Amino acid sequence: MVSRPSGRASDAMREVKITRNYTCHAEGSVLVEFGNTKVICTASVDASVPRFLRGKNQGWVTAEYGMLPRSTGSRMGREAARGKQSGRTQEIQRLIGRSLRAAVDMQALGEHTIQIDCDVIQADGGTRTASITGACVALVDAIRWMQREKMIKGDPLKQMISSISVGVYKGMPVLDLDYPEGSTAETDMNVVMTDQGGFIEVQGTAEGAPYTQEELLAMLELAKKGCTELFEMQQQALAE
Amino acid sequence: MVSRPSGRASDAMREVKITRNYTCHAEGSVLVEFGNTKVICTASVDASVPRFLRGKNQGWVTAEYGMLPRSTGSRMGREAARGKQSGRTQEIQRLIGRSLRAAVDMQALGEHTIQIDCDVIQADGGTRTASITGACVALVDAIRWMQREKMIKGDPLKQMISSISVGVYKGMPVLDLDYPEGSTAETDMNVVMTDQGGFIEVQGTAEGAPYTQEELLAMLELAKKGCTELFEMQQQALAE
Amino acid sequence: MVSRPSGRASDAMREVKITRNYTCHAEGSVLVEFGNTKVICTASVDASVPRFLRGKNQGWVTAEYGMLPRSTGSRMGREAARGKQSGRTQEIQRLIGRSLRAAVDMQALGEHTIQIDCDVIQADGGTRTASITGACVALVDAIRWMQREKMIKGDPLKQMISSISVGVYKGMPVLDLDYPEGSTAETDMNVVMTDQGGFIEVQGTAEGAPYTQEELLAMLELAKKGCTELFEMQQQALAE
Amino acid sequence: MVSRPSGRASDAMREVKITRNYTCHAEGSVLVEFGNTKVICTASVDASVPRFLRGKNQGWVTAEYGMLPRSTGSRMGREAARGKQSGRTQEIQRLIGRSLRAAVDMQALGEHTIQIDCDVIQADGGTRTASITGACVALVDAIRWMQREKMIKGDPLKQMISSISVGVYKGMPVLDLDYPEGSTAETDMNVVMTDQGGFIEVQGTAEGAPYTQEELLAMLELAKKGCTELFEMQQQALAE
Amino acid sequence: MVSRPSGRASDAMREVKITRNYTCHAEGSVLVEFGNTKVICTASVDASVPRFLRGKNQGWVTAEYGMLPRSTGSRMGREAARGKQSGRTQEIQRLIGRSLRAAVDMQALGEHTIQIDCDVIQADGGTRTASITGACVALVDAIRWMQREKMIKGDPLKQMISSISVGVYKGMPVLDLDYPEGSTAETDMNVVMTDQGGFIEVQGTAEGAPYTQEELLAMLELAKKGCTELFEMQQQALAE
Amino acid sequence: MVSRPSGRASDAMREVKITRNYTCHAEGSVLVEFGNTKVICTASVDASVPRFLRGKNQGWVTAEYGMLPRSTGSRMGREAARGKQSGRTQEIQRLIGRSLRAAVDMQALGEHTIQIDCDVIQADGGTRTASITGACVALVDAIRWMQREKMIKGDPLKQMISSISVGVYKGMPVLDLDYPEGSTAETDMNVVMTDQGGFIEVQGTAEGAPYTQEELLAMLELAKKGCTELFEMQQQALAE
Repeated sequence: MVSRPSGRASDAMREVKITRNYTCHAEGSVLVEFGNTKVICTASVDASVPRFLRGKNQGWVTAEYGMLPRSTGSRMGREAARGKQSGRTQEIQRLIGRSLRAAVDMQALGEHTIQIDCDVIQADGGTRTASITGACVALVDAIRWMQREKMIKGDPLKQMISSISVGVYKGMPVLDLDYPEGSTAETDMNVVMTDQGGFIEVQGTAEGAPYTQEELLAMLELAKKGCTELFEMQQQALAE
Repeated sequence: MVSRPSGRASDAMREVKITRNYTCHAEGSVLVEFGNTKVICTASVDASVPRFLRGKNQGWVTAEYGMLPRSTGSRMGREAARGKQSGRTQEIQRLIGRSLRAAVDMQALGEHTIQIDCDVIQADGGTRTASITGACVALVDAIRWMQREKMIKGDPLKQMISSISVGVYKGMPVLDLDYPEGSTAETDMNVVMTDQGGFIEVQGTAEGAPYTQEELLAMLELAKKGCTELFEMQQQALAE
Repeated sequence: MVSRPSGRASDAMREVKITRNYTCHAEGSVLVEFGNTKVICTASVDASVPRFLRGKNQGWVTAEYGMLPRSTGSRMGREAARGKQSGRTQEIQRLIGRSLRAAVDMQALGEHTIQIDCDVIQADGGTRTASITGACVALVDAIRWMQREKMIKGDPLKQMISSISVGVYKGMPVLDLDYPEGSTAETDMNVVMTDQGGFIEVQGTAEGAPYTQEELLAMLELAKKGCTELFEMQQQALAE
Repeated sequence: MVSRPSGRASDAMREVKITRNYTCHAEGSVLVEFGNTKVICTASVDASVPRFLRGKNQGWVTAEYGMLPRSTGSRMGREAARGKQSGRTQEIQRLIGRSLRAAVDMQALGEHTIQIDCDVIQADGGTRTASITGACVALVDAIRWMQREKMIKGDPLKQMISSISVGVYKGMPVLDLDYPEGSTAETDMNVVMTDQGGFIEVQGTAEGAPYTQEELLAMLELAKKGCTELFEMQQQALAE
Repeated sequence: MVSRPSGRASDAMREVKITRNYTCHAEGSVLVEFGNTKVICTASVDASVPRFLRGKNQGWVTAEYGMLPRSTGSRMGREAARGKQSGRTQEIQRLIGRSLRAAVDMQALGEHTIQIDCDVIQADGGTRTASITGACVALVDAIRWMQREKMIKGDPLKQMISSISVGVYKGMPVLDLDYPEGSTAETDMNVVMTDQGGFIEVQGTAEGAPYTQEELLAMLELAKKGCTELFEMQQQALAE
Repeated sequence: MVSRPSGRASDAMREVKITRNYTCHAEGSVLVEFGNTKVICTASVDASVPRFLRGKNQGWVTAEYGMLPRSTGSRMGREAARGKQSGRTQEIQRLIGRSLRAAVDMQALGEHTIQIDCDVIQADGGTRTASITGACVALVDAIRWMQREKMIKGDPLKQMISSISVGVYKGMPVLDLDYPEGSTAETDMNVVMTDQGGFIEVQGTAEGAPYTQEELLAMLELAKKGCTELFEMQQQALAE
């Protein structure tokens, strides 16, 4: 039996914490922690929409992602100083935006934009899945704020979204890879789900050997288990 | 029964053509056509490696992707003129590079880099999957050139790689989406496989409604069928 | 008697081919070949004009130029990846735009822009002159399309434009330099003419020794001969 | 008597908290809070020096500064996405670097660089002074880490540095301006001091009316009082 | 007694010359010389305001600063070629703009922008203080031009502004540092004053040892003396 | 008979002044004036060569060009602030560099680079031809400096270079166009010559109607006359 570096069971997630109202200015502000991975997720409401949507009577949700330079083991160059976002950063923020748009009825949102910002202050693997999971809570807080402010009438929230990583580590399908696992796993898969059990994104990459259909199915089972637990934690956080 | 805009059966690919030696300078140069989608794929051999690999006695494969401004129905801005590659471009070229690295034994390649360039001259959906499929043939030609030039001794080619898109169109799983289908499909999935049946990448995105596990499995079956056909066409092209 | 690397007579052009409707989306799309130099020229119609022309009741023609990274003997960096167009690229695209504007009556074009894109897929010298010659045919196709679409009433085409390079190679004035000649010629001159025999541009650069007025006149004679032949080929292509 | 928006006495600072080891990867990591202003300050040790110092047998301290997009009342554009740091950002990070270099004996530091990163997660005025004050504690932690790791022998710490803002608000000199004060004050002055009472930087700007020498002297007295209190808090934090 | 490299007394400025109408196109154009430091200062009038001021019935003054590449002892890279302005450049141009805005009543200026450009053609220390002093004269000329053109009715000039550097050189407070002094001085302070004796900016930086309050006061006295002399020279130049 | 806006005869140049040692730091520094066009040309000696020439035992000459923002009738944006040089700027600086390389024997220059900077402080047409003419004098001064400093033994100066613009204005060939002529001329041609009567560059552009061979020849005659006069003025300046 393979043992994980963290000692966790193959289907065990790290401890997850979701802290609402973490900073004071944003309409939604959440600190999400997946073990040592810590991300500040804010949702900002803007009373306008991007040019391509003007006059279409609908809203938009978009996202940006960043890492503090020393959120990682060795310091990364600051993207603002280098003058461009890396391909990895752009890929992740496109994923976050696409995932959260699945949570929202754009007609019901009206001509407003909710801008998500996910900033990693400490990284230990799974920053994109933590970002999506935390940002969905910030998004709900921003929507509730809009309702209190009478900016919208109905409820644009269609469903909750959560995300978890799974992978194949030394031949064993595992849930919620931390950095030591993720950097050596044969396969790394990020899954985004709805709280009704549908898939929004499945992105599985063989880093070493190709993976089989059996491994793919085993990873999907783990992801479903993980997302189910995350939906509960989101609800607990929102109930506080 | 849903009918596809192209009239194709749900499991039918478009006509695929692979033309080797399409341009004269590159060590490998292929024009790949998936119906109206046409991509020039070149493989260029460079007798050095990126800084992070120097002295490690291994090679590298990397890729860049671009579209001619008027490869599309309405003209896109030229990325060179705007001064940056879009997030989509970066995402695609990262995928192509990752996929083709799975074809190569980096130790056997020695301290050389094979640079893949995929430039779309006409687009009708599926440009990234056509790029991967065509670039793998260009890659083989570049490796054969290196062998003839005595730059390497063994054979760094581990396996062939091909790629196809699948999706759910009006509720029906379909193979090889063209632009009219891809722009309205509920789900779009790109699959990269090895000729031994393993998965290198599975990237499935719900554009509209979430997709179910049954749909996911049906799409994977279609992708396997498509990749199998593509491996045959690659072999025919390489045999000429 | 000096012999040219290609074995051509001093006043002989390479084989020229002009293929219309080379790609399917653009209003005008031409593959132009001057021997091994191959350029895709498209003309795209846009129903607006740049800011500095708004409300002036006239149109505009502008051009962009690029080379595929491996259109050349050794791979060039991709301009989109480096984040800027080189000085050479900008110089060439300014020349192409200026040359083609001489073909068009801007009042008759109305408030439309014709955007020319010249993308070199294989280079062997003379890419800018091939671009101008091919783009003029694409421009005519775009204008004819506008007439069929009833976007304009009259005919904004004033005259045809073609372009050829001439030079002094080992003391001998020669027509239509290919890459081996152009990289060693003492003088390289690009000439753009109208089909009525006027000059639009003469750009002659001494790469080695200065050139004399006699050499200049000899080069101009060759250029006139070359442009005359190119006007015939443009007409043949347009007649098909 | 003028009353401050916060109700504080004219010579009263906001509550200051300095939390060491706030994140886990950096050699020094501090969360500094001046009331609602919260900044993560990390100090990263790098075993090299910038090019202009190579071979000079001395070290370097440099700094970068950033704000999370929603650290402020209305969302600011992300500098990494815009592709450049603002003039304000550059001015602040130059000030932070210059100030902290005054704390360090560069010869004793040897050929190492300490990179300071100050990232504002919540802003309410005084972010640059909080950054300097917090970063000095992170710097000490990084130096202590280098000593434990035997990277250096002696102690490169020459003196502690702290910084506070002062200003003239409705004619009254005040200490430690928060955002509502700073945005309406006639004069805003940032002072950086050593724990031996010397001045490292005095930067006083009249936003409205010019200030007199008397006002300048009154502000300096307040700054001395503030810095003295900050040095005590730094020592308490370092003693924990 | 310490002697200055230039042989000047500690409170002696270099020879200052202010030449109006130095170039012919700008509404105000001044060559200012502080010894060997020579700066062309122009003031350009634009009949619009930046976006953030539109409709507010007030004007704006802003500034840009540059150095010719060989204005200095060894050639500096050209900022336009490198594609960005350095932090130092941005800091200086922000200072110039802020200083000159103190000279102008923005309501009286109406919806106009005065754009200041300070370009150093020869540098020998003190370029920012010479820029501010010279630009204020160009600003007056631009305002007088606007009055003659009937663009404004009243007089938006509130007060004159001048600027001088002071420092501590080998322990001695000195006025108007040239490059040899400035590059070795322990402290460098730039002071911007109004002709009514108020302070607009005081920016004092310890380059080596910290400075004491006594040194600060001595430097301020020198600065007052220097600015007083500069106001006289501005008036003489404006009287010509 | 057409009269020129300036009242000059068709073959009359504006008054030309060449002032050496205009600024004090550069090895060669010239203010060149063609009437109201004023350009500072400096030549800076660097004891290294660009990467592509290392180890080839030869030198290099390169050039950069800029315009002060208010050198023109209406203010141009500062290229350093916009973050890029325009196509026009790049075209001109490539022309200047190419022209001056014709003056120098690169082997005799040894492994040194002479960097030319041409900065327009006042523009009235013909800035590129004035730049080339003035920069050649600065180049000679830099070469003489290198000889005095014993950096080189022989004399790398092969020949003098000068440049003038000619054109067709209202049907009349004219010499040395100023801005009012240049902006309305049908044809604008820049000619670069050697003092032995050879052509380095001929760049003739039809802005309106195409030009005939007769006009081309007439313009060349005028250019020869102009360059001959410029060579005399260069020699007078160098003799002082």
